[in-house]
Amino acid sequence: MKVPTSDDVAAAADRIHGHVRRTPVIEVSPGTFGVDAPLVLKLELLQHSGSFKPRGIFNRALTQDVPAAGMVIASGGNAALALLHVGRQLGHPVEVFVPETGPAVKIAKLRRYGAPVHQVGRDFAEAVVACERRAAETGALLMHAYDQPAVVAGQGTVGLELEQQCPDVDTVLVACGGGGLVGGIAAWFDGRVRVVAVEAAGSPTLAAARAAGERVTISVGGVAADALGASQIGAIAWEIAQRAIDDVVVVPGEAILDARQRLWDELRICAEPGAAAPLAALIDGGYVPAANERVAVVVCGGNSDPATLT
Amino acid sequence: MKVPTSDDVAAAADRIHGHVRRTPVIEVSPGTFGVDAPLVLKLELLQHSGSFKPRGIFNRALTQDVPAAGMVIASGGNAALALLHVGRQLGHPVEVFVPETGPAVKIAKLRRYGAPVHQVGRDFAEAVVACERRAAETGALLMHAYDQPAVVAGQGTVGLELEQQCPDVDTVLVACGGGGLVGGIAAWFDGRVRVVAVEAAGSPTLAAARAAGERVTISVGGVAADALGASQIGAIAWEIAQRAIDDVVVVPGEAILDARQRLWDELRICAEPGAAAPLAALIDGGYVPAANERVAVVVCGGNSDPATLT
Ligand SMILES: Cc1ncc(COP(=O)(O)O)c(C=O)c1O
Ligand SMILES: Cc1ncc(COP(=O)(O)O)c(C=O)c1O
Repeated sequence: MKVPTSDDVAAAADRIHGHVRRTPVIEVSPGTFGVDAPLVLKLELLQHSGSFKPRGIFNRALTQDVPAAGMVIASGGNAALALLHVGRQLGHPVEVFVPETGPAVKIAKLRRYGAPVHQVGRDFAEAVVACERRAAETGALLMHAYDQPAVVAGQGTVGLELEQQCPDVDTVLVACGGGGLVGGIAAWFDGRVRVVAVEAAGSPTLAAARAAGERVTISVGGVAADALGASQIGAIAWEIAQRAIDDVVVVPGEAILDARQRLWDELRICAEPGAAAPLAALIDGGYVPAANERVAVVVCGGNSDPATLT
Repeated sequence: MKVPTSDDVAAAADRIHGHVRRTPVIEVSPGTFGVDAPLVLKLELLQHSGSFKPRGIFNRALTQDVPAAGMVIASGGNAALALLHVGRQLGHPVEVFVPETGPAVKIAKLRRYGAPVHQVGRDFAEAVVACERRAAETGALLMHAYDQPAVVAGQGTVGLELEQQCPDVDTVLVACGGGGLVGGIAAWFDGRVRVVAVEAAGSPTLAAARAAGERVTISVGGVAADALGASQIGAIAWEIAQRAIDDVVVVPGEAILDARQRLWDELRICAEPGAAAPLAALIDGGYVPAANERVAVVVCGGNSDPATLT
């Protein structure tokens, strides 16, 4: 397994340039959300398909020869939405596999693309099994939601952009499921910036691996399972975490929902629960910035039902 | 009446610095929304209180001596939300007057501040009468939603920021009710950039004035009346329009609602109807950019019910 480096992230940025949106950042003043520090929010929910996922998928699709059978992926929802977008843009057929338990909003969006959407299994891990079987059958290129080098390198371009937009950032808080996003961002910064992985209490894959000293399989659930619901930290992210992820914070589900509501109340941002986890770590006190620490938070997805905001 | 100049806008930007958010822009590629041109969106719905209105109100509140009786305003809703925010930040008492017909979302947000919210009259014009009476009674500083020089100069800082963020813009499309926003932006650009006012079919104040050759009172209604529902173009905006507003486009209500839905589908942006009007002008063909014309659109408010997005 080739673990991506900052050079791979830079190459990915060049490769996917023009295919992805350069998402903006906004700075909010101290006191916003009851957090004492000023914060920079990277608004990656404005990305094509409503999450950061197209970055990694474009990068892999543009690196590999895509066979006539196209590409397949298993996903909690957002990687599937991203693959449907990428397939349409690049003109490749795609099929996606999502758990039966996927949220209605994501399923409805997936169906609108008109490509095959298979709902199989109770969780992401079970959808992966079905997807791999299908790839073997058809010869389609197997895409992984977080554990392929080109995917991780592509997600890392969020960090590269953030550094260009906000060169003086000290710390970045990033949601972690299988670790593709936080791994890619950590690969980019490579110790130059403090990278904190934020996990939902329902699926603390990296915290569990740290506690065990190795990757372990956990059972998943909770309010952000459709985004952060991997049952094991990715092998790539685990490798990167040894040297470039500084801290892991686990946040309770209620804190995630509260942070999501506050993003709406304060900024009219409709994040999905998984994407509100990093802010929740700050509001809930799981991560306490030092005086003058410049903290950035990646708001990495917006595929949830806006009617659940009050 | 002193009509604000670009110098006044620059002075306003200095004055309100630190009080308002520098809202980001995002560029979207040609084809997005079915529009052939690339577009820059100025995401002013991320501003404090969910619209651009605090800019003008902070500017006036920081220019005048505010009496102990505080400040009052009549508003379709957003100027009232902004005044409540400004009053709280600067420590002044405030009272606001909104029409009885105001949308539930705005009224609910107003009530949360805990300051007096008077629902009077069938439209903005009637709320103004009640507000002026109250100011005469209490000695409070009368704030106007769009027709005071400091207010218009403050709104113009949206244009100043946009130019810093996107120096090569050719044209900017701006929603117009009483014309404070588009007037301020036009005062800033002063002919250097093409400024297009976009009005809702339910309240075409500037188009009606252009047709009549003078400011006229119209009856108001339609899907964006709670934001664009002034019954007459402001005297200040009318003056500025003579030299610095290049074009006026009137868009139908359905086009506005469609553009609002597309902002959600494409970008997970929850704009209010009035704030979707400029994009509607592009989607609906009311404004057709020339080849290579760099067009910016101000998305100026987000105070609507997200549950109405599908
Ligand atoms: C919105 C959102 N945030 C975070 C994640 C977690 O990403 P990763 O699995 O790369 O850690 C996902 C994955 O689906 C997601 O959709
Ligand atoms: C969201 C939004 N857009 C546009 C306008 C129109 O502003 P103006 O009256 O300055 O033209 C308003 C006014 O309330 C508004 O709230």
